[in-house]
Amino acid sequence: MIKPDSWRQRLHVVVFQNDTPAGRRFDQTLLIIILASLVVVMLDSVESMHREYAGLFTGLEWLFTLVFGIEYLLRLYCSPKPLRYAFSFYGVIDLLAVVPGLLTLFYSDAQYLLIVRVVRMLRIFRILKLGPYLKQANYLLAALRGSRQKIIVFLVSVSTLVTIFGALMYVVEGPEHGFTSIPKGIYWAIVTLTTVGFGDIVPKTPLGQVISSLVMITGYSIIAVPTGIFTAELATAMRGQELLRACPVCAKDRHEPEAGFCCRCGNPLFPRQPADG
Amino acid sequence: MIKPDSWRQRLHVVVFQNDTPAGRRFDQTLLIIILASLVVVMLDSVESMHREYAGLFTGLEWLFTLVFGIEYLLRLYCSPKPLRYAFSFYGVIDLLAVVPGLLTLFYSDAQYLLIVRVVRMLRIFRILKLGPYLKQANYLLAALRGSRQKIIVFLVSVSTLVTIFGALMYVVEGPEHGFTSIPKGIYWAIVTLTTVGFGDIVPKTPLGQVISSLVMITGYSIIAVPTGIFTAELATAMRGQELLRACPVCAKDRHEPEAGFCCRCGNPLFPRQPADG
Amino acid sequence: MIKPDSWRQRLHVVVFQNDTPAGRRFDQTLLIIILASLVVVMLDSVESMHREYAGLFTGLEWLFTLVFGIEYLLRLYCSPKPLRYAFSFYGVIDLLAVVPGLLTLFYSDAQYLLIVRVVRMLRIFRILKLGPYLKQANYLLAALRGSRQKIIVFLVSVSTLVTIFGALMYVVEGPEHGFTSIPKGIYWAIVTLTTVGFGDIVPKTPLGQVISSLVMITGYSIIAVPTGIFTAELATAMRGQELLRACPVCAKDRHEPEAGFCCRCGNPLFPRQPADG
Amino acid sequence: MIKPDSWRQRLHVVVFQNDTPAGRRFDQTLLIIILASLVVVMLDSVESMHREYAGLFTGLEWLFTLVFGIEYLLRLYCSPKPLRYAFSFYGVIDLLAVVPGLLTLFYSDAQYLLIVRVVRMLRIFRILKLGPYLKQANYLLAALRGSRQKIIVFLVSVSTLVTIFGALMYVVEGPEHGFTSIPKGIYWAIVTLTTVGFGDIVPKTPLGQVISSLVMITGYSIIAVPTGIFTAELATAMRGQELLRACPVCAKDRHEPEAGFCCRCGNPLFPRQPADG
Repeated sequence: MIKPDSWRQRLHVVVFQNDTPAGRRFDQTLLIIILASLVVVMLDSVESMHREYAGLFTGLEWLFTLVFGIEYLLRLYCSPKPLRYAFSFYGVIDLLAVVPGLLTLFYSDAQYLLIVRVVRMLRIFRILKLGPYLKQANYLLAALRGSRQKIIVFLVSVSTLVTIFGALMYVVEGPEHGFTSIPKGIYWAIVTLTTVGFGDIVPKTPLGQVISSLVMITGYSIIAVPTGIFTAELATAMRGQELLRACPVCAKDRHEPEAGFCCRCGNPLFPRQPADG
Repeated sequence: MIKPDSWRQRLHVVVFQNDTPAGRRFDQTLLIIILASLVVVMLDSVESMHREYAGLFTGLEWLFTLVFGIEYLLRLYCSPKPLRYAFSFYGVIDLLAVVPGLLTLFYSDAQYLLIVRVVRMLRIFRILKLGPYLKQANYLLAALRGSRQKIIVFLVSVSTLVTIFGALMYVVEGPEHGFTSIPKGIYWAIVTLTTVGFGDIVPKTPLGQVISSLVMITGYSIIAVPTGIFTAELATAMRGQELLRACPVCAKDRHEPEAGFCCRCGNPLFPRQPADG
Repeated sequence: MIKPDSWRQRLHVVVFQNDTPAGRRFDQTLLIIILASLVVVMLDSVESMHREYAGLFTGLEWLFTLVFGIEYLLRLYCSPKPLRYAFSFYGVIDLLAVVPGLLTLFYSDAQYLLIVRVVRMLRIFRILKLGPYLKQANYLLAALRGSRQKIIVFLVSVSTLVTIFGALMYVVEGPEHGFTSIPKGIYWAIVTLTTVGFGDIVPKTPLGQVISSLVMITGYSIIAVPTGIFTAELATAMRGQELLRACPVCAKDRHEPEAGFCCRCGNPLFPRQPADG
Repeated sequence: MIKPDSWRQRLHVVVFQNDTPAGRRFDQTLLIIILASLVVVMLDSVESMHREYAGLFTGLEWLFTLVFGIEYLLRLYCSPKPLRYAFSFYGVIDLLAVVPGLLTLFYSDAQYLLIVRVVRMLRIFRILKLGPYLKQANYLLAALRGSRQKIIVFLVSVSTLVTIFGALMYVVEGPEHGFTSIPKGIYWAIVTLTTVGFGDIVPKTPLGQVISSLVMITGYSIIAVPTGIFTAELATAMRGQELLRACPVCAKDRHEPEAGFCCRCGNPLFPRQPADG
């Protein structure tokens, strides 16, 4: 462990925690740098901007890589368990923020590095992880975790629906109306079932339009299912700070966190045990 | 009935149940084969793939038909009531997995058999029907069953809306703007009301755009109806029912979930226990 | 009033009620005729069908007008209060089913009569008004009535949003990108906010696309509002058969319909009054 | 303060309040004038209308400016604290209703003034702020305020999603399929995730269509999140809070809504009354 009040210890508070003014200021600075680096990535992708300011953008990118590199080394240095940090989710994200800059030394035209540079945005969540937001995000995560199985059942049903409808449309409409293969039909079915409706592929035959109508009404109706699942779980998660121990007499199983007696039957939740011996 | 520990009995456990390691392995193998057969169907529908690998795909299709055929015969053989199995929902689905392969012996260019081959996907639900998923799917089904009547009322109202709006648009916009008939107008109304919005037919006249705005806002608002119905039912299904404990004095046996006293005779449902000692 | 067991009385039971086999059969026949007349209207609007079968469709339309006319006269005849029936909602709908056929005697090419002919579909609701559906439709109507004021607040907010966003886009994008006037901009804002997205008018300038993104995320988020309103009201409406009298001691105000004592505190809901004198 | 029954006092009641017939009539007249001025702004933006009636529209706009100007001066005059009114939200909105008319004296072709003229619509909310609507709007605002933090977490997640997906599509599809820059990709991702689906930019490559399908299914599923958040909060806002009655023995004062016994000391919250007589 780290000796208290050491330099590393003080650094750890600033870099990893946010309940001190210094820690909060560090996080805010980092947030601004992350957002700035994202803006640079985006502007650099605009053709006209790139032609004019390519040099400036490359310079800024080098600067950001440097800053993130120093930050990564600091985190490694002041972390009590550097290896555990390095392989944690945020450790990997922090590393990914440095990698693209380094890789461009070797590959000059690495299009796919762009995505890694955008992944930096995930680091915002580290900063969001503070104060009141943490609790709210936990509610959302608890609701999502609680509804995981129902959502898997739902997604398998939706996948089956779009596969069957996609194949059906491929047979009914055929390649001459844009449904050139079953995967294309499935893509169309997803576009339609989710009510996105790009309009790049549309049914032309009367039978195809009847099937489309079915798909649309299905999609419009079953959107209720994930909503219902999630709402019910979230309501449970928000009520969920209660004491879950059942009353020994009436079996009521959700009590106030501080309860000593059941509020339905008045019997003690934790009867006093006879003294030993 | 089948004699325990016989060969058929052991086969039945492997093929139909999934609480043994062998049964689970059998189901997983089947799942992979089903997915593989689906992938083959899809790739085969892609023009360029079909031209190059038609022979391979036909061979694989024959293999899958063989495997599913053997599986079907095994299920028939080890089922305690073969006829009841054969006419059950899954029995028919299992048979349908074999039919298309056999039919291609007689019809060489059977486009519509494609759909039957895709229907194999429904067999995934047999495998999903295990462990924790079963309970979750039951919640969903209970909620859907509970809201069936409300949903029928809702669907009839939606059908009436799209018919009247479709006819209105046919009269207002006319064939020169793509609304060539009332069924086409209804198709447009469904596309619009469900917020899919392909854009293949769009209103051009000011009056048509006003009516469209009405349809869109209606569609946007009434999406609340199925969601509300389903959420309310799902919450009921998950919360369970009334307290079933009978009153110790008057024996009334269904109470409000939170009741502490009988609402008929006023006596406590859970008399307070004498203190220990 | 009508003398029991008279001919008119028996006709009234068949025509207006549906708890006898004869009444149910009458309703089912009517349902089929209404649907058939709708199918004829739709097919007649298809150009190729009209050219070939115009005579047949006109004949059928005459037949339907005759049937609905006889039915209307029967209803008038056997109704205990014919005038009140004639001016009731369903009385007007029943009359509208006859009118278009008669009017075509005078106007040969009455396009707008088409809509009146489609309005016949509303008559299906008369037939739906039976058994279990009635109660469910009442739940839905109660929930809609209960949320009326919240929905008006919501619709005024949405109208303000689309007007301001529509004017903004008219100024930002201008007539050269399809936003030819403020009403057109409002039409676009409705198409976008409701997530329909036809794609007939789309933003082309960067600023326009930023504003569009705002509109879309707003629309995607506030769809939660009507859903939330309706779900909360529907849950209340479904719980709503309870006794609403508050307990005189603890003021709990929702009890089982049969309750005599409060299920929270055990005190009588209706204390016995001292005898008079 | 203002002397009661003075002329200013009586004017204040008419102009600012709406519980007298005169006040209500004043508000209704104002509502009609606001709507009329909006209609004029809209019609004036239609090219053909503008060409023919430009003079009439300018005259009406002058009239409306005059009316709103007089109204603004009246409000300033009869307000007990004129400065506080002038800097309140509605004070600024009221002033904005007059400004565009005055500014056109100096700028003849001020396109952007159009938006200020449309902002007048916000004044409708002042008039809506009456009677039963106030309470309903408060429920909605309470639910929105209660879910603010959850919604921020949600919006940050959505922003991250659209940024990463937008960059991914820019790399996968490239400028030749319309994804000319990362911001354009983000615009597309928002159009798709919110299920709007204009169809002005659509994926053409198979990989792009697979990613699109992911985006669409994500968007379709996470629409459940804001709905769930809002519904849960609205239900809480409408159900009200815990039972506030203090326990007669230990004085604990916040209990579960259905509590019959104190959960700290086990004594009944509502002791049973002695029977009458």
